[in-house]
Amino acid sequence: MASLPDPKPPSGAADLENPVTDPAEPSSADPAVTSVVRRWRREDLTEKAGLILRGLGTLFSVIAFVVMASNKHGDWQDFDKYEEYRYLVAISVLAFLYSAAQLGRQVHRFSSGKDLLSPRTSVFVDFGGDQIIAYLLISAASAAIPMTNRMRQGGDNLFTDASSAAISMAFFAFFALALSAMLSGYKLSKQTYI
Amino acid sequence: MASLPDPKPPSGAADLENPVTDPAEPSSADPAVTSVVRRWRREDLTEKAGLILRGLGTLFSVIAFVVMASNKHGDWQDFDKYEEYRYLVAISVLAFLYSAAQLGRQVHRFSSGKDLLSPRTSVFVDFGGDQIIAYLLISAASAAIPMTNRMRQGGDNLFTDASSAAISMAFFAFFALALSAMLSGYKLSKQTYI
Repeated sequence: MASLPDPKPPSGAADLENPVTDPAEPSSADPAVTSVVRRWRREDLTEKAGLILRGLGTLFSVIAFVVMASNKHGDWQDFDKYEEYRYLVAISVLAFLYSAAQLGRQVHRFSSGKDLLSPRTSVFVDFGGDQIIAYLLISAASAAIPMTNRMRQGGDNLFTDASSAAISMAFFAFFALALSAMLSGYKLSKQTYI
Repeated sequence: MASLPDPKPPSGAADLENPVTDPAEPSSADPAVTSVVRRWRREDLTEKAGLILRGLGTLFSVIAFVVMASNKHGDWQDFDKYEEYRYLVAISVLAFLYSAAQLGRQVHRFSSGKDLLSPRTSVFVDFGGDQIIAYLLISAASAAIPMTNRMRQGGDNLFTDASSAAISMAFFAFFALALSAMLSGYKLSKQTYI
């Protein structure tokens, strides 16, 4: 939500001598055109930021899933003996599926220029979906922390280290999707109905 | 985000016979005026819904705080011996302070007609604030659940019952604030820059 710096400050003197300075932007002197170009740039930036955040969400949630699901060392050191850890596995799979699907949709939109949903639906799906998955991720990560803390008081081992790693990854996925939800809210506010 | 039902469907025949049917809406025949009136009603409704949700958030978080903070029955049955329960107390106080402040601001706006913040800032503060407090509340409630579950496997008593009640109240406060965040997102999308 930071205001974007204008890359080309209006330099009146240069314009008078030489009205068309940059061949790539032939009509930079026209304020209406400048405004539209700036809006395109801004939309492009939020689009790219959304893509990166979803990509990070996908990556972190799949790492959380893999690390936790492979965390079986026999005896009491099996992740599936603890409801917190099973919950974390379930939610990280869900987060992975959601963010991979969103990523696929966005890449398809980039390549074909067409969205699978109408622009209006799309903004609301982005906004609601990111927020719900972010709530689930922080819930799963928070639930798994106290038990891991208690186990680590008895000493660290492979099992507790892997659990901590998976929890951290789930938190990173949460941050990515929470930022993505904030960005979708920002997009909502910039939506035009022309 | 449900579409609001139009309370007065346009009945062409009645309009022809009797153009002014309702004295409260003298210019319902003029489409521009109807549209403005409908927008006022919609804004009024989202404003009231926001007020109710913040009120519920305040109520539930203060109950969660009081129930958990008074949950001391000696020996192992003291809430402050468990980090999950201390976290829940801290977050429910924070949620109470935030939603009470927001409620106060909104009531002040209703009574005086002036907001303490500019409309633009206000929408972003509402949106970001509700979301952050909702994340904290679901995190605290989720963290406190597994321990309470394990204790209740050994048998229910006053301590576990009070803990469960406080957790439920924190969840209700979370739902109220998460809905309020969604509503703020909807308001963002309806914001006009005229």
